[in-house]
Amino acid sequence: MRAVQVVGYHRNLELTEVPVPEPAGPWDVIVKIGGAGVCRTDLHILEGQWADKSGVELPYTIGHENAGWVHAVGSAVTNVAEGDKVILHPLVTCGLCRACRSGDDVHCESSAFPGIDTNGGYAEYLRTSARSVVRIDDSLEPADVAALADAGLTAYHAAAKAARRLTPRDRVVVIGAGGLGHIGIQVLKALTPAELIVVDRNPDAVKLAVSIGADHGVVAEGDHVDDVLALTGGHGAEVVVDFVGEGGATAEGVRMLRRAGDYHVVGYGEDVVVPTIDIISTEINIVGNLVGSYNDLCDLMVLAARGAVRLHTAKYALDDFQTAIDDLDGGRVRGRAILIP
Amino acid sequence: MRAVQVVGYHRNLELTEVPVPEPAGPWDVIVKIGGAGVCRTDLHILEGQWADKSGVELPYTIGHENAGWVHAVGSAVTNVAEGDKVILHPLVTCGLCRACRSGDDVHCESSAFPGIDTNGGYAEYLRTSARSVVRIDDSLEPADVAALADAGLTAYHAAAKAARRLTPRDRVVVIGAGGLGHIGIQVLKALTPAELIVVDRNPDAVKLAVSIGADHGVVAEGDHVDDVLALTGGHGAEVVVDFVGEGGATAEGVRMLRRAGDYHVVGYGEDVVVPTIDIISTEINIVGNLVGSYNDLCDLMVLAARGAVRLHTAKYALDDFQTAIDDLDGGRVRGRAILIP
Amino acid sequence: MRAVQVVGYHRNLELTEVPVPEPAGPWDVIVKIGGAGVCRTDLHILEGQWADKSGVELPYTIGHENAGWVHAVGSAVTNVAEGDKVILHPLVTCGLCRACRSGDDVHCESSAFPGIDTNGGYAEYLRTSARSVVRIDDSLEPADVAALADAGLTAYHAAAKAARRLTPRDRVVVIGAGGLGHIGIQVLKALTPAELIVVDRNPDAVKLAVSIGADHGVVAEGDHVDDVLALTGGHGAEVVVDFVGEGGATAEGVRMLRRAGDYHVVGYGEDVVVPTIDIISTEINIVGNLVGSYNDLCDLMVLAARGAVRLHTAKYALDDFQTAIDDLDGGRVRGRAILIP
Amino acid sequence: MRAVQVVGYHRNLELTEVPVPEPAGPWDVIVKIGGAGVCRTDLHILEGQWADKSGVELPYTIGHENAGWVHAVGSAVTNVAEGDKVILHPLVTCGLCRACRSGDDVHCESSAFPGIDTNGGYAEYLRTSARSVVRIDDSLEPADVAALADAGLTAYHAAAKAARRLTPRDRVVVIGAGGLGHIGIQVLKALTPAELIVVDRNPDAVKLAVSIGADHGVVAEGDHVDDVLALTGGHGAEVVVDFVGEGGATAEGVRMLRRAGDYHVVGYGEDVVVPTIDIISTEINIVGNLVGSYNDLCDLMVLAARGAVRLHTAKYALDDFQTAIDDLDGGRVRGRAILIP
Repeated sequence: MRAVQVVGYHRNLELTEVPVPEPAGPWDVIVKIGGAGVCRTDLHILEGQWADKSGVELPYTIGHENAGWVHAVGSAVTNVAEGDKVILHPLVTCGLCRACRSGDDVHCESSAFPGIDTNGGYAEYLRTSARSVVRIDDSLEPADVAALADAGLTAYHAAAKAARRLTPRDRVVVIGAGGLGHIGIQVLKALTPAELIVVDRNPDAVKLAVSIGADHGVVAEGDHVDDVLALTGGHGAEVVVDFVGEGGATAEGVRMLRRAGDYHVVGYGEDVVVPTIDIISTEINIVGNLVGSYNDLCDLMVLAARGAVRLHTAKYALDDFQTAIDDLDGGRVRGRAILIP
Repeated sequence: MRAVQVVGYHRNLELTEVPVPEPAGPWDVIVKIGGAGVCRTDLHILEGQWADKSGVELPYTIGHENAGWVHAVGSAVTNVAEGDKVILHPLVTCGLCRACRSGDDVHCESSAFPGIDTNGGYAEYLRTSARSVVRIDDSLEPADVAALADAGLTAYHAAAKAARRLTPRDRVVVIGAGGLGHIGIQVLKALTPAELIVVDRNPDAVKLAVSIGADHGVVAEGDHVDDVLALTGGHGAEVVVDFVGEGGATAEGVRMLRRAGDYHVVGYGEDVVVPTIDIISTEINIVGNLVGSYNDLCDLMVLAARGAVRLHTAKYALDDFQTAIDDLDGGRVRGRAILIP
Repeated sequence: MRAVQVVGYHRNLELTEVPVPEPAGPWDVIVKIGGAGVCRTDLHILEGQWADKSGVELPYTIGHENAGWVHAVGSAVTNVAEGDKVILHPLVTCGLCRACRSGDDVHCESSAFPGIDTNGGYAEYLRTSARSVVRIDDSLEPADVAALADAGLTAYHAAAKAARRLTPRDRVVVIGAGGLGHIGIQVLKALTPAELIVVDRNPDAVKLAVSIGADHGVVAEGDHVDDVLALTGGHGAEVVVDFVGEGGATAEGVRMLRRAGDYHVVGYGEDVVVPTIDIISTEINIVGNLVGSYNDLCDLMVLAARGAVRLHTAKYALDDFQTAIDDLDGGRVRGRAILIP
Repeated sequence: MRAVQVVGYHRNLELTEVPVPEPAGPWDVIVKIGGAGVCRTDLHILEGQWADKSGVELPYTIGHENAGWVHAVGSAVTNVAEGDKVILHPLVTCGLCRACRSGDDVHCESSAFPGIDTNGGYAEYLRTSARSVVRIDDSLEPADVAALADAGLTAYHAAAKAARRLTPRDRVVVIGAGGLGHIGIQVLKALTPAELIVVDRNPDAVKLAVSIGADHGVVAEGDHVDDVLALTGGHGAEVVVDFVGEGGATAEGVRMLRRAGDYHVVGYGEDVVVPTIDIISTEINIVGNLVGSYNDLCDLMVLAARGAVRLHTAKYALDDFQTAIDDLDGGRVRGRAILIP
């Protein structure tokens, strides 16, 4: 089969021919790829940023946002069958550690991450586990939802966690209405009755945010913290979900908080720097957010099937992978780029 | 009556004669002081650190950790009567704002803070509110529990919040076994089945911690983060409660955390500085803690009555206030200094 | 002023002239009534069903669902001022007991209930407390929202409590799409992403339910438990909210539950009878629901201001109280009857 | 190997020779039995009460409370190795359904129950799954903890669930200080600071309860509901955990509740019968409790290793199974009977 592989850092990806994977263990599932998301992390991998962290041996097949159809299953697999339409949770988890036994599978003590530390989905077929496949509704197409597998799932997880404390009287601020923020906004509208304020530097992104449900849009032009305070009666918001995490967003996000508020870190880049005296005197919380769990992905797929979460995609043939990479790097992709084998 | 007042910053307190306060509003309660805690914050007030923040007009009576007996009540007070033995919640809250209506009275939108921004308890009598008095068990003496009103209440609040997620399999680390930490340790033992590790620079404090229930004591001599990791199977602790908050404790505390762990800020001084990538990749939470609510104080008084939380005190006559202040400033007080009118 | 009073049981109400109430205590608030809901409970009061329970002395003014404008306030009231448009929480609570201090004011240890055990709102003015008045949005009229004060608040409380565990994958069943159920449906749609199934004996009520957001409507004609099971993959629903509570609804509601499901009792009349073996083997919960708290009412008013919760009303002049009572008794009121002074 | 089997209903068990089980699937684990609890359910099985429910084919090996040493493992097992000392969760669960993925494995959609619907532990060896084995501390012996596998785990689960809402000011009532209640009392003391009241008909059981930590013991002689009310200031307890569930215990338990209280059903036999008007006017909850999850068993084993939960056992050789059965049936076993191969 065809597969697009990392053959070296600071080098282009290469299309090559490799054997179709087969089930090696009883819980293995082979998925025929219907769509694989092209993510900014893929660019970082090529720059070698993940080399030490993942320890992956080259060459290997890249691509960690995948959906498709079940092609073959191991001997113990009972939850999916050949032909099922599925999206793939990005991690392959053990199912036995305390985290897995508690539904927090993203904190599994021995997980694999296809596309990062083992072969991923820029290919015709991918090997994953019965624990990682979520059947999707007949109305959904793999290529349309693939990018929900990681970027969307991260946004869902943060939004759902943030939503737990939100009542109709509360305000929630989303910083960053780009790829993840765009999903986060839709999820917050679906899960919570709180008033939603969206902040972004890009006026078009703010317009889009309002068109998909934000109650207020704020263009970040310097006065945006004050704008948010004005929109919240001077008190700040009960919850801020920061999909940016760099360029000063963290300090601004914390300033937008009401006493006893939650600042959710999703985007990353800079350091969070907050005086302890400020943390205790206002009793705020700084809440980390990783990608969502298997359960989160199941929930997100229900929202997607219902049309409550939509994603704009730009589709490329697998063979055109370099164009997709270049377009992403050059800022020419609106929504998410998807490779289709 | 006699009252010890702040008459200027960078000057000594002065004992003076002032009128006994009377109920001015229907919910007022006048308390005959049985004991008033002498707190490091009192030293900071004299140094002028709170002048701008509190906006208090001088002279005024200092003292924010108070207990005693009800002396007189306003026309609408039904929850206490003359002669009742009480401890005072440090804040006088409005009872009408959303925070007060939700049991989060420490976030009251218009509260007063006797001893900080209005007359406090280094005196024979103090005016507070029906909303701030907690009746205490017959077996307790005001002078013995006064210091639980603020320092102890802060420790209780953090420990109780931390305890909510702790199961028998979890580990909780307490950083700092001094005044607050010492109460926190006792509260954690009373509220949670988790294994308790205490870290302090002072070997005597560590010994004391073990004697009052810590499962492991670690003297902070440079390898203490590794020591904690070793005690937690290399994973770190589910919860860290930091009663220090300065001198590098915050960074060390975060390093002691397990994935998805909670780092509780109680002590303060330095900045919390954590890369966003670390916050999201381990999905940790940084949790602020202010003083406890009225409900927390009621709960703490039950533990005190049961002997589950004990406090060492050094008692001084009110007239000897300067000796108490000097002893505290000079590090000569073991436990908490208490003024007795 | 004019007031409609209970002058005896099994007798008609009587319109009479009484003095306008004045603030008697510092927290008293006098409200000029803009609308007073006519509730089935009022019929039961006239039948004497509440006589022993309330212990009210006759004559007194009936009416427990009230909204209007602040007319006068006691000396300590700071949260409302003359002229403010307000809805009234049905209870006047103490603010000092543990329940009040925890936000659970409906479990206040010494509350009054205007219209039930003290003078209510079938009148031009009513005396309540600062703790019971919620300012409403400019866009809302007292006469339009008055019935949300008790019936609507009960529905909100149950729906909001039920919603806490509901995710996009869950199903929630509402039994009874009448007065309360109709509000409950709107609240559930606003607060939760779960799929909503509504069951009612009346096909018109089912149609209405679907028109305001129910995902599935089931006419209760004998096979409705099986219909619900069929709609939930044979498993039953995670949550059932029963606004009926009589005529067999409780046993049916329990049969509609999935393992580990919650059956919420809101409507009442019959006994809940469930074998303990069934409760433990499926690990279900039977959850009681009383009227909502002050905080619940604040949240509900936000939904109302947003148009997310609407109520159909039939308005009557105060002088036509007997017609309103007769219409309600005769089943001729669609939505809620409201008296307007 | 030797195995004690059900060969027919209303007949004695029979000791027979059967092959030692081997791993049949990749997640299978074969355990050499160190101790198997003899439970009242085993008597009910022999009476045929479970025949239809379990659908088990005769003959099969009975025994559902098991602990021992790992003897052999399937190809995919990574969490235990030969020689490990383990206790067995009573269920063999799928690991893939929503319940399993959420940590609620007792609600697994396709589980097996060794000793009930497949071969159990009255034998030298037993086949279970990697998902069902919990390694125990070196200090614990399989024969000493086997009865915690089901009876103890049920008590742990209910007590831990009840404990979540309990603060130092709360009261919790345990009805029934027998086998399960005895464990429940120890768990409640370990997990919660609430005041503990124990009610039992047997004065010796009440004495024992007090000796292991109950704050108050009440002998049920007719006035016990009033006794509990007197011990709770006339209000009732925040939580009642009923390990009896028959003979009138359910109605009594509900009467012992404070407003907004939780009545936990653990023991079973009679119907719960409560008027809906009582459920709503006091807003109480009736909470079902099944056996605990895998996570619960891990937590319980930590308490057992620490000596916080102890169980009295009477040990019998496997060959003496009939004596054990007869002793249990005749009320001659103090604590739990354990068979040792």
